[in-house]
Formats: sequence, structure tokens, C-alpha cells
Amino acid sequence: MPRYRITIEYDGTPFIGWQVQADGTSVQGRLSEAIHKLGGETVDVRGAGRTDAGVHALGQVAHFDLVRDWPADTVRDAVNFHLRPAPITILDCTVIGEGFDARFSAVARHYRYRILARRAPPALDRDRVWWVPRPLDAGAMAAAAPALLGKHDFTTFRAAGCQARSPVKTLDRLDVTQVGDEIRVEASARSFLHHQVRSIVGSLKHVGEGKWPVSEMAAALAAKDRSRCGALAPSRGLYLVRVDYPPGPFPPLPSH
Amino acid sequence: MPRYRITIEYDGTPFIGWQVQADGTSVQGRLSEAIHKLGGETVDVRGAGRTDAGVHALGQVAHFDLVRDWPADTVRDAVNFHLRPAPITILDCTVIGEGFDARFSAVARHYRYRILARRAPPALDRDRVWWVPRPLDAGAMAAAAPALLGKHDFTTFRAAGCQARSPVKTLDRLDVTQVGDEIRVEASARSFLHHQVRSIVGSLKHVGEGKWPVSEMAAALAAKDRSRCGALAPSRGLYLVRVDYPPGPFPPLPSH
Repeated sequence: MPRYRITIEYDGTPFIGWQVQADGTSVQGRLSEAIHKLGGETVDVRGAGRTDAGVHALGQVAHFDLVRDWPADTVRDAVNFHLRPAPITILDCTVIGEGFDARFSAVARHYRYRILARRAPPALDRDRVWWVPRPLDAGAMAAAAPALLGKHDFTTFRAAGCQARSPVKTLDRLDVTQVGDEIRVEASARSFLHHQVRSIVGSLKHVGEGKWPVSEMAAALAAKDRSRCGALAPSRGLYLVRVDYPPGPFPPLPSH
Repeated sequence: MPRYRITIEYDGTPFIGWQVQADGTSVQGRLSEAIHKLGGETVDVRGAGRTDAGVHALGQVAHFDLVRDWPADTVRDAVNFHLRPAPITILDCTVIGEGFDARFSAVARHYRYRILARRAPPALDRDRVWWVPRPLDAGAMAAAAPALLGKHDFTTFRAAGCQARSPVKTLDRLDVTQVGDEIRVEASARSFLHHQVRSIVGSLKHVGEGKWPVSEMAAALAAKDRSRCGALAPSRGLYLVRVDYPPGPFPPLPSH
């Protein structure tokens, strides 16, 4: 019973998010349907990150098991065929050890957030960026970001409904760069709290607008108080860029 | 009666092209409607380039005249408001001399063509790139391109229905670059024949696939024979990036 690891790109706009829910079309659900069409097997597709509705992926990773031993390239091409016309595509598929788990084996997750800061609304990137119709001070945002690096209690930047057992996370990267009218925030960590990146970006925007002094970022973090968070940045600007794993092999775990 | 110059971004996917036609929604038509909603005036919006259906613009330029003397920023913001939800946006609007003509004053037009050369179909850039499901030799394409630079009879790379009086054009730039799975062709000229960029890109793809030797590009050009052209590249990968004008001022022409 081979385990397959897939790397996936998707446009999150038409989906209710990664995860199957009672109503609506999810990325996970569309993938399961397409895999079912391959050989009639009903599988549980497990993703590295449960992206919210509207969040995109350039390199989401997932795994699933099949009874039949298909070549990995056949799985990639056939499932891509059956995914049409959904904006989901398998970039890469490999057979991997049973000890591999897309969620629990991951050692780093990399997200990107795109802000378009200009007077004119986006035409080409409408569902791909957060449109802010005025200039932002990217230098101030970049100066405020390092206060969040390292291991902290991120209660301020955590969704009310977040199910993580602990609010303590280690943020390894939080870079703010500007190219033309676009400001990009790149965030990396082993794992994130629910809405953590969007909460951080919404707070950085306050700094960019001058509503918050640069020092408020550290103060908001130290307060451990959700009410001190900036507005939640919309999902459309967020991309799951990459998930990192140790080199493997991934032998079956003793508990399996 | 002020003349306005606008710079426009649009997603060409839902449009029949720039130009108003008997059926379907054009970019020019949507702009005229939105300008009409501003102050009830019916205007002729003249563009620098008549992009085909599905072709995008990052910086199309157009001009129109209004009887009423609106501030340029008001025109930009109000027309952008009335353009919604069409994926067209005015990036910039300025009042300009009556001698300015978006089409005839232009001294250079810059186009970009994006090819995605990978096995997996695009999810995020579906209507924004030409998907070629195999690797292309970008080095060979880059080696073939310079044969087209300069002043030539481009009959080979011209649409059957092209209305230009002469097939002679001067190509000032034709660069092929690769970033990851994406190959970009950047083409610049004072003006282009109908389908010239897409004809050139379709031919370069033949070189990239190894169907054509590098030398065939020069031979096809020299043949001045439309049947020697490669396949026409699809419109979805083409972007009108920028149009250049002399610094002005643009005093009214004597004939006006």
C-alpha cells in the first residue's frame, strides 16, 4: 500500500479552504474526488497546512495512501486531468515511506503575503493581493518586523478559535520588501497559529500607515492580548509558498 | 475641451479585445461606458494598441476629450469606480495637449510574452501564460531571436488580415529569458504588425522544442512567406507592458 507525497499549487479563490467541510468545495475534497476517478479508491488526503478560504498555495504538500501501486508520474498526470477545470494542479508526486506525514513531518512552513499599495485597484491581481489604496511606509514595516522574530507567546496574533494547544511559536523569518507598488511579507516558522500570518500583516499595515509607531509591534506582542492586534489581513493576499521536510527516509512509525 | 491621457491595466480574459465590435464586451467599450457615467458625455477612447481578445495590458495608453473640465484625479477615481467589476483599472490620468494622440504620438511599444514550460498545468496563472507541458531550450530560443532584430519585411510573422500598409517594421528588442519554469520574451518596436509578437513567439517555441534549428528563424524571415511561420502563440500569454512618448508638450496640430 504505497504512500504518495504530492506538491500542489492552487488558486484559493473559489474554495472554502483546504479542508473538507459540510458545505462548499474544498481543495482537499476536489483532490479526493480526482484521486477517486483515477482508480476508484476513496482516500484521505492529508495536507501540511489547512489554508483558509481564499488563501493560495504555490507549494502545499499532502500525502495519501493507495491500495493499487500506480507509478507516481501516472498519479500526477491522471489526477491533474481529473482535477480540471478546478484551479488545482499537482506539481510533483513521489512515492514515500509510510512514516512520512505531510503535517507532522514538516520542519518549516513558508508563507508570502502580497499587498498592493496604490491608488488604482488591481485589474490583473484582483484576488491575489490585498489592495490598500494609499502608499505604505515599507521601511517602517521592515523596522517593526524583527520584534516578532524568535520564540514568543503569540496570543495577540492568534485567531479566537485557534485550536493549537499552546500560543508559543518560534518565528524564524519575517521580512518586508517592496518592489514598485507591491509590498511583500515573507514569514517562516516550523508551524503557525491560526490566522497568525494575517494578524501579523494586518498589524504591520498599521505601522506602514503611521497609525502605529514601530515600537507598537513589540508592545502588542508583549501584551498577549488579542484586542491589541491590528485588523486581520484578507486571505486573498496570502500564499503557502513551500513546506520543508527532513531528507528522509521515512520508515513506518512503531505505532503504525 | 481638455484632452486626457490615461494609462490602463486590464485582464484581457473576459473581453473581445481592445476595440469596440458589433458583439461582445470590449475594453474600449467598457471604458467609454464608465466615462459616460462620470458626466454624461459620450467619448471616443483612442488606444495606443488594439490588443486582441485575451491579451492583457500592464500599461496600455489611451486618450479622450471631455467638454467639461474635470480634475485628472477625479477622472481616474470616478471612472475606476464606474468600471467595477470589470477587470480594467486606470493607473494614471493626466491632462495633455490636443496634439497628443495615444496611437500616433507613440514612439515605442513594449510587449511581454509568458510561457510556462512544465508538466503540470497552471493553477494560479491559467489565463495569464501559454502552458507548454514540456521543457523548452530557452538558450536556443535566445540564440535564434537576434536574427529578427532591426528593419525587415516581416511578412512571415504577419496575420493574413493585417491592415498595415507595409510589412516592413523595425524590431528594437527581442530578449528571451528564463526564471524557473517560466520563459519570457520581451519585444519592443515603434509599432508592430497584427499578430507579429504572437507569430514570433510561436516560431521561437519551435526552436525551443528542437523542431527548428536556430538558423530557421533567419530563414523563415528571409522567405517572406506566412506559411513559414510557426504556430500562432495564444493570446493569453501576451501583455502590452508600456508605451513610450516623446516628452511633449503636444500643441494642437495645424490640421485641427
